[in-house]
Amino acid sequence: PRPRTSLVGLRQHSPDRYARRMAGYSLSKDDYLARLRRIEGQVRGLHRMVEDDTYCIDVLTQISSVTKALQGVGLGLVDEHVRHCVRDAADADRAAGDEKVDEAVAAIERLLRS
Amino acid sequence: PRPRTSLVGLRQHSPDRYARRMAGYSLSKDDYLARLRRIEGQVRGLHRMVEDDTYCIDVLTQISSVTKALQGVGLGLVDEHVRHCVRDAADADRAAGDEKVDEAVAAIERLLRS
Amino acid sequence: PRPRTSLVGLRQHSPDRYARRMAGYSLSKDDYLARLRRIEGQVRGLHRMVEDDTYCIDVLTQISSVTKALQGVGLGLVDEHVRHCVRDAADADRAAGDEKVDEAVAAIERLLRS
Amino acid sequence: PRPRTSLVGLRQHSPDRYARRMAGYSLSKDDYLARLRRIEGQVRGLHRMVEDDTYCIDVLTQISSVTKALQGVGLGLVDEHVRHCVRDAADADRAAGDEKVDEAVAAIERLLRS
Repeated sequence: PRPRTSLVGLRQHSPDRYARRMAGYSLSKDDYLARLRRIEGQVRGLHRMVEDDTYCIDVLTQISSVTKALQGVGLGLVDEHVRHCVRDAADADRAAGDEKVDEAVAAIERLLRS
Repeated sequence: PRPRTSLVGLRQHSPDRYARRMAGYSLSKDDYLARLRRIEGQVRGLHRMVEDDTYCIDVLTQISSVTKALQGVGLGLVDEHVRHCVRDAADADRAAGDEKVDEAVAAIERLLRS
Repeated sequence: PRPRTSLVGLRQHSPDRYARRMAGYSLSKDDYLARLRRIEGQVRGLHRMVEDDTYCIDVLTQISSVTKALQGVGLGLVDEHVRHCVRDAADADRAAGDEKVDEAVAAIERLLRS
Repeated sequence: PRPRTSLVGLRQHSPDRYARRMAGYSLSKDDYLARLRRIEGQVRGLHRMVEDDTYCIDVLTQISSVTKALQGVGLGLVDEHVRHCVRDAADADRAAGDEKVDEAVAAIERLLRS
């Protein structure tokens, strides 16, 4: 079976290999996948809540929590992009790095506006 | 089979009965359910994107779009709550109406902060 | 001199007259004015920070705090609108009440998107 | 007198010198200062609106517009930070660069939550 590579597990068992990868808000791929699976379950829960005519304020509370979870994944990706894509591109070529920054800030603006 | 009661359908076929219900951002129950089903599919799509190592900026764009869709559902529920719960409570009893307003604004604050 | 009517003062000294007014997130007019005066000072502080070449992360922290303060004023106004305008209109005329709800939810959407 | 170095002016008169600086969302220092001055005026306008008992929805619309303007300044600073601080630090020392990324993402999270 595919080994579980949770954030905690990685930190415990392979500090060297993943140390840089795990910095800040960055997540391991398996952690992104686990979070998105959980969010999918939360959205299914929202569907059930509406189906059962749950009180609208309670549905709203759950929506805020799903939104926050999604933003958490988004922040992980922003971290990823800045930590790796931006810098790797900049190492190779300043102009390519500039483009990556443009992309990053435009993506952050979309997050802010959503 | 349960009749489809999409927003459009309702507006076309039963203007009188649903006219008030459909006002503003409010959605029919079936429309909430359909939107949440679509959002669930979008989250599954995000999972696939991460699995396939899609470029992080593209994943971020999709996250913004899911967040926006969730906020749309949230706004529908806020509309619902203010249009029905707040006013119905207020008709019965001013203090009960005040409580509903408190709940509504607290929920809106959670949306803003998420 | 104009009497100070801070939230606290009002609550202590004239519970009856302002009780409903002060509920939830609503603020007294003087409190709105005081908050906006403070926000104006914070924006002037931001100007000074940029002028003095303050480290950009510290400027960003201050921007988040000003934004949060503005949203607080916004939530107070949403509370106000729902608690008073929506209900007063609804008391007089259902259709007028519906219009007020439409306005409220559109304004909340603008807050969410800003 | 200090020469005006508006974004437009800079682009017209000194494309070479400021080309990189002006990329993406980054602003010149004078442009930040001009924007903050304008925001300060908008907040003063909000104060006047409340003083004159302007209809709450109109005040809310103005609040959204000020918030958007502040977020625009914030995005400029994020751009600045990633384009310059993060990369300059990374050029000197990978660990220092990592710290700058951590700071940036934490600041973006505060923007998102405000």
